[in-house]
Amino acid sequence: MEEHSLIAKWTRDAPTNSETLVGPGDDCAALDFGEPDTLRLFKTDAIVETKHFPADADARSVGHKALARALSDIAAMGGAPVSALITIGIPRDYDRGRIDLVYEGLYALARRFDVSISGGETVRSLAGLWISIAVIGSVPRDQIVYRTGARAGDWIFVTGSLGGSIEGRHLCFEPRIPQASWLAERRIPTSMIDVSDGLASDCRHLIEKNDLGAELQEDALPISDAANRRFGRADGAAAPTLAALTDGEDYELLFTVSPQDATQIDKAWRVRFPDIRLAHIGSITQQPGLRIQSRKGLIEFNQYGYDHFRES
Amino acid sequence: MEEHSLIAKWTRDAPTNSETLVGPGDDCAALDFGEPDTLRLFKTDAIVETKHFPADADARSVGHKALARALSDIAAMGGAPVSALITIGIPRDYDRGRIDLVYEGLYALARRFDVSISGGETVRSLAGLWISIAVIGSVPRDQIVYRTGARAGDWIFVTGSLGGSIEGRHLCFEPRIPQASWLAERRIPTSMIDVSDGLASDCRHLIEKNDLGAELQEDALPISDAANRRFGRADGAAAPTLAALTDGEDYELLFTVSPQDATQIDKAWRVRFPDIRLAHIGSITQQPGLRIQSRKGLIEFNQYGYDHFRES
Repeated sequence: MEEHSLIAKWTRDAPTNSETLVGPGDDCAALDFGEPDTLRLFKTDAIVETKHFPADADARSVGHKALARALSDIAAMGGAPVSALITIGIPRDYDRGRIDLVYEGLYALARRFDVSISGGETVRSLAGLWISIAVIGSVPRDQIVYRTGARAGDWIFVTGSLGGSIEGRHLCFEPRIPQASWLAERRIPTSMIDVSDGLASDCRHLIEKNDLGAELQEDALPISDAANRRFGRADGAAAPTLAALTDGEDYELLFTVSPQDATQIDKAWRVRFPDIRLAHIGSITQQPGLRIQSRKGLIEFNQYGYDHFRES
Repeated sequence: MEEHSLIAKWTRDAPTNSETLVGPGDDCAALDFGEPDTLRLFKTDAIVETKHFPADADARSVGHKALARALSDIAAMGGAPVSALITIGIPRDYDRGRIDLVYEGLYALARRFDVSISGGETVRSLAGLWISIAVIGSVPRDQIVYRTGARAGDWIFVTGSLGGSIEGRHLCFEPRIPQASWLAERRIPTSMIDVSDGLASDCRHLIEKNDLGAELQEDALPISDAANRRFGRADGAAAPTLAALTDGEDYELLFTVSPQDATQIDKAWRVRFPDIRLAHIGSITQQPGLRIQSRKGLIEFNQYGYDHFRES
């Protein structure tokens, strides 16, 4: 069996109970403890040396990233983080000064968002540093945003700019917690996800969860300077666009908005978050699948779409 | 700096906030979300191949152990587990059938205690399988039991029997959740901890937290059959006792009881838990340190105590 079928099986078989409102499959689990106004969010995220950060990465940034990824998932449901536990797997003879800096980076981010670090442990890793973070968050019951909820005709928005995160942003991004809370308080998003696998993949997650499709406008995609720098010259005009669509680790918010709310959001956003771009990149469609309206016409962006695009 | 000083530093510097009632240093973190009757417990625990289980260990048992350790910590504060997240680090080319069995063992235990598995992920491990579990639990506000709270004169009890866990029990133990809840509901323990590092070490954790000491009775220690089998013949009379004092991974409850309550507990326990031993093994003392009343007299059980005991 392939990895993704196995994961689907492990997810399907996972035990549930009456306090678990949302189990595997959204950005976080949601727990209902019977509090009148509040749901609790629950999330773990792990990063592994060489896979998520190079062995010689700035150690403070490694700690920052470990926590920021989990906080980004809390944000994606409209919530605020409350408390985290840190587990670090440390190879034998690993420089303890670097671990010290990992904690420094992690604690600095925690303080900025008033997250307590309420425990954890260090264990031996047989090879490679790894960090596993568990976070509890909270979200007002009537403000929680799921991956489901989008409807055909909804506009699709994304915060920030996309692509080329590997150039550095993946180690120092700020989780979009204030932005997500602002959106959720105003009941703006009909569905939301954080962009961690790449815009195309995460957009596909969103539409598949909703049994819908999406059409994105190539010209509206907010391509990052890093993607333009990295791919702009050698690889042709489409390369930065492809990077924006398929590079992972942007940690931006991708969300849908009903047409009547969509026309209001732009101005209010610019007043509240003047330094953070908000792009209207397309619409949710009844027709399944992900399509890109490019200069060359409408491209079906399935697995072959990547090549199609690369050649365009 | 040595490992334990570094951990002390990381613990001391950990950010806290108003919702965090108990941070690092007890069996679990305790969070106060303002629910009138309930506190939330929060715990992570990780196990690593070769350190916590051999590479060829029964895979179901590995999953069982991964969750059971975290549940044992929830029990030690008098709580009940609610939901868990599972992160598994999988080496390249690891047998996926074994991972399937890890989940089976883990899910079976979760179902037995009505714990939802509400998410998690699989990541690549550079070497060796590892599993990191995060658990949320709940405990009635007036029933939470801390490591602190013991007073001089309190009796010391331990559940089950001790030592030789490596023979097999460390992979299949049942977390003492019903027993701990029963004790906590009756407000019996003045302090409690689960025995994971070994009776002597965990007893020392307890008394050091309370700025007190303890005197244990050698003859009262509940030595497991495994410890007797393993050490009984070759190593002299003291060897099984030493195993009961210093072998780790018993996952029993070690707790203190005020003298007036202590005389009542024995009979009620035997009615409720006829198959689980409860041993009164000593008393809390004003005088700091851990002492064992042995057949050869009172032995100070510091780091030299082990050798002293071994030679006796």
